[in-house]
Amino acid sequence: MDEFLAAAIEEAKIGLSEGGIPIGSVLVIDGHVVGRGHNRRVQSGSPVLHAEMDCLEHAGRIKAADYRRAILYSTLSPCDMCSGAVLLYGIGKVVVGENRTFKGPEAYLRSRGVDIQVVDDPVCRQLMESFIRHNPELWNEDIGE
Amino acid sequence: MDEFLAAAIEEAKIGLSEGGIPIGSVLVIDGHVVGRGHNRRVQSGSPVLHAEMDCLEHAGRIKAADYRRAILYSTLSPCDMCSGAVLLYGIGKVVVGENRTFKGPEAYLRSRGVDIQVVDDPVCRQLMESFIRHNPELWNEDIGE
Repeated sequence: MDEFLAAAIEEAKIGLSEGGIPIGSVLVIDGHVVGRGHNRRVQSGSPVLHAEMDCLEHAGRIKAADYRRAILYSTLSPCDMCSGAVLLYGIGKVVVGENRTFKGPEAYLRSRGVDIQVVDDPVCRQLMESFIRHNPELWNEDIGE
Repeated sequence: MDEFLAAAIEEAKIGLSEGGIPIGSVLVIDGHVVGRGHNRRVQSGSPVLHAEMDCLEHAGRIKAADYRRAILYSTLSPCDMCSGAVLLYGIGKVVVGENRTFKGPEAYLRSRGVDIQVVDDPVCRQLMESFIRHNPELWNEDIGE
């Protein structure tokens, strides 16, 4: 497996071990991980720290030219909010672990020039399928439903 | 002036007094402010805490049905990220202080059913015009340019 998707899965598992929603993300620039994070709805009571946002927050303030070369990895298809962050910063590419348990606005991102690669990874799927089965209300809260 | 837009402007001015970017936001449900915030790029080194995100974070975890009735006030037209957060949570209405110094994807939000009201408030405009004139690089960083 791609080492960066593996790192995002590791973040998802850390989140799960904390009692949180198992979604993880890493930001990669020029082959180096510059930020990593996981969903913190439960852990921090946060509605904005989805995995991708937590990752971008940990990456800190980055120059526009560096965001352009960045690749955002997420174990799950990014929602409207996280997709919007990708657009704001002009992140050129998103690698998505899976989009079967939830699918964000991938077509809209592509229409605005973002390269989206969907891996359809079985570990990513299993993490979410199991979590959603056992925590449907918490999951619905996380996606605004 | 609308008391809630006035509260958002107050937040913007707090941000400015802290050395930050003067953009403020409040979230209103059933006539009550349930969250408020301002841009924290400078103060917290945060790329994700735009005013609207900081406001949503302070509002905390809210039920989907309550977000649907909520109105988000922002002194400035929400960017792609903050607009995405509006879509994620199904916030029904956004009141925008002004959209002359920066205009986010208002047409896209409207196409997805969000009611957008642009006030074109002179205080909101003056805050941003002055800030951008004196801090062009910081402002460009905040909008990914």
